[in-house]
Amino acid sequence: MDNKAIVKKEEDFAKWYTSIVRAAHLCDYSSVKGCMVIEPNGYAIWEKMQEILDKKFKELGHVNVQMPLLIPENLLKKESELVEGFAPEVAWVTQGGSKELEERLAIRPTSETMFSDYYHTHVNSYKDLPKLYNQWCNVMRWEKETRPFLRSREFLWQEGHTIHASEEEAKKETNQMIEVYHWFHNEVLAIPSITGIKTPKETFAGAEYTLTNEALMYNGVALQAGTSHYFGQKFSKAYDIKYTNKDNKLDYVYQTSWGTTTRMIGGLIMVHSDNYGLVLPPRIAPRQVVIVLITNSEEELNLANKYKEELLKSNISVYIDNTDKSPGFKFAEAEVNGIPVRIEIGARDLKENKITIARRDTREKIQESVDINISEYVTKLLDTIQSDMYNRALERRNALTFEAHNMDDMKHILDTQPGFIHAMWCGNEECETKIKELKGCKSRCIVENGEKIDDKCVCCGQEAKHHVIWGIQY
Amino acid sequence: MDNKAIVKKEEDFAKWYTSIVRAAHLCDYSSVKGCMVIEPNGYAIWEKMQEILDKKFKELGHVNVQMPLLIPENLLKKESELVEGFAPEVAWVTQGGSKELEERLAIRPTSETMFSDYYHTHVNSYKDLPKLYNQWCNVMRWEKETRPFLRSREFLWQEGHTIHASEEEAKKETNQMIEVYHWFHNEVLAIPSITGIKTPKETFAGAEYTLTNEALMYNGVALQAGTSHYFGQKFSKAYDIKYTNKDNKLDYVYQTSWGTTTRMIGGLIMVHSDNYGLVLPPRIAPRQVVIVLITNSEEELNLANKYKEELLKSNISVYIDNTDKSPGFKFAEAEVNGIPVRIEIGARDLKENKITIARRDTREKIQESVDINISEYVTKLLDTIQSDMYNRALERRNALTFEAHNMDDMKHILDTQPGFIHAMWCGNEECETKIKELKGCKSRCIVENGEKIDDKCVCCGQEAKHHVIWGIQY
Repeated sequence: MDNKAIVKKEEDFAKWYTSIVRAAHLCDYSSVKGCMVIEPNGYAIWEKMQEILDKKFKELGHVNVQMPLLIPENLLKKESELVEGFAPEVAWVTQGGSKELEERLAIRPTSETMFSDYYHTHVNSYKDLPKLYNQWCNVMRWEKETRPFLRSREFLWQEGHTIHASEEEAKKETNQMIEVYHWFHNEVLAIPSITGIKTPKETFAGAEYTLTNEALMYNGVALQAGTSHYFGQKFSKAYDIKYTNKDNKLDYVYQTSWGTTTRMIGGLIMVHSDNYGLVLPPRIAPRQVVIVLITNSEEELNLANKYKEELLKSNISVYIDNTDKSPGFKFAEAEVNGIPVRIEIGARDLKENKITIARRDTREKIQESVDINISEYVTKLLDTIQSDMYNRALERRNALTFEAHNMDDMKHILDTQPGFIHAMWCGNEECETKIKELKGCKSRCIVENGEKIDDKCVCCGQEAKHHVIWGIQY
Repeated sequence: MDNKAIVKKEEDFAKWYTSIVRAAHLCDYSSVKGCMVIEPNGYAIWEKMQEILDKKFKELGHVNVQMPLLIPENLLKKESELVEGFAPEVAWVTQGGSKELEERLAIRPTSETMFSDYYHTHVNSYKDLPKLYNQWCNVMRWEKETRPFLRSREFLWQEGHTIHASEEEAKKETNQMIEVYHWFHNEVLAIPSITGIKTPKETFAGAEYTLTNEALMYNGVALQAGTSHYFGQKFSKAYDIKYTNKDNKLDYVYQTSWGTTTRMIGGLIMVHSDNYGLVLPPRIAPRQVVIVLITNSEEELNLANKYKEELLKSNISVYIDNTDKSPGFKFAEAEVNGIPVRIEIGARDLKENKITIARRDTREKIQESVDINISEYVTKLLDTIQSDMYNRALERRNALTFEAHNMDDMKHILDTQPGFIHAMWCGNEECETKIKELKGCKSRCIVENGEKIDDKCVCCGQEAKHHVIWGIQY
């Protein structure tokens, strides 16, 4: 516990972020540049994310598999756009034991290749379709600049890879999965996210189109949260994934992929946390309630055990802190670690038949009778915290959402306070590139059926085709 | 479903094994030699193993983390025995993006190195101890000969790495974890296993001693199931993991590690399966019950749904097969996939108010009234199957357990029917090596407090020190 080391958010957001990561023991750098150690507190959040998403994926008929970590260079090269997109950031295995390998093996930067290679030999008939496979694994991208959780050479993720007998079905899957991420971000992580489609320039290498969930951090920098790609028959033609359809004719399958990563732990921090440490939305908090004993008396412990039992019955995760640390230390530790609700049981309060309940998000303290129905009370409080956190994040995003009608507007916004910038676009990559020259501002997504703000492109003044959200990104 | 492709167990055990792996869609080879694709049916078993073990680990106070996949060569070299043990089978990353790396990076063959490096910078005082960390991950060992699940270049496992303030506590942990594996193998996988200590020659590279769980496959070949290592201060000295003890003096921590892998899926097959496909003990079966509809009538479906609801309430996993495949095909598919209990609902039976219940392990069919208390009945049946499977495996192991009093006995046993061979040993590595020359027969473990079979070593005839179990291994 090291909450004194937390840098002020207002003073230096980047340093504040790193200090939260360290103070809450979420992850740390390792001896390998750009690779992180995910520590128990960080990994517990990832386990909770896995648990919630995995359940949802399975409800929708997906099953988990495990593809090999290594991809032969030749296999990777079969889909030209994919290899061009990823080649600059691939880590290569060239030696096995004491021998030089005949062919370099890439550590997977993503697994379209391996799934396609597998499907190639395992699909024959429309009866084998769809295949709704997902895997939870590590991937590696040899990034130059790294940042804990947000951009690291190795990270953990899930990647769904599905194949279908029709374009319609595959497109439906692509849509369905971006909706799952949208639900996950908004309802579970309390991070308001916007769904849209990537511009061709920002589309995933090899995809026909990419749907994205875009979130805005507290400092106005955007984070791509989850993506869902529609591949059409691009990969199935490159990897020869053919099947016999109902009319007894050979056809190529229609393919999708979709994923989200440990970077969302970074997103959680940058949307919700404060100068006292981590703040976690109750639905993703691995531990939702801590009961802190002030004097560690038997009377306190008995009440704590009674509460604990009742809370567990309502599926609320709870632990008792009856260590010999000072009460102040225990409070600060629970705050740094982002435990949503803290119940303080102390001798002085007990004389008056009272307990104190503290919310982590607002740091409010409320005195209540020891006789309240604790699980009803806490269930309600956790729900309130969850929705309050979402609403505050939404307010912050709204406050940092702007409209630009020309390049001067764009420049002004980016110079004063970046955020989500809504502006019209002609659809020309040239304009997109010009806008990117402004502090690296990128298109986040095209808002489908987006309101028409102007008739003209924010950059070139030609006829506008799309309502686009722009922003500086992590 | 491909049960016709199953080779007869009696005719060719190795081919039978591979044919089961393929017919039940557990795993398949990939484009990378020695690396496997774990398919949905195989991965579901691994998920179940993870769920059960992870819960147990956490009950015992362990927490999960994630260490980097890559280990710098210099860091790996710090503990000389470890690097000697693993160097011949390490895969090396030498290029990142388009650049040659300054230092080779090993893909982890095991993570003592990374845990030690982390503990080195994160432990100061006895108050930081113990650290009870575990990780679920992939590891890589560049094996020459590979076999699905049993020996592959990449495999999945968990590796616990704990550090403690005293030898006593660390040894207690080492013991506790081998007991967890023993419980898991015997009670969950229905595989009778024997716990013992490895001879120095077979001890894990860098460990002071290794506790092991040894199981015997149907064909008399041994499988090392789970291991738990006591390191003493070997690694903490090599990696400088010091802490200030209660007397305010600097000391090195005491360390353990323990792990089990996806190879246990192979173990499950080789102990329990038959010529009709996979046979899974109910406690590890991802799907415990299938309800097969014979004609797919509404009446059948209504009853199936009623049963399903009741079974789910008792936490029994169940699915209904009302596809348009023939009843025979549905039965065979459930058999190949090792579903422990099959409930058949058909029009003819229903006229007599009957259903048919089939056990996968014995292939027995029993007619019962439709009005039985289905969840009570199935719960009891699953328990019976679980203990019957354990007992049959134990009988088989007993039948393949021998005693050798001299080298002629040894040879004779290994020539006729290998199995667990109990024999006395002088403690001399020379004798161990001589015995290994007999068809690669290795010491499995020293039986602690083992009964004294002879006074003399089975090999050299000198005074015997240990009761050892020997066997040919996977």
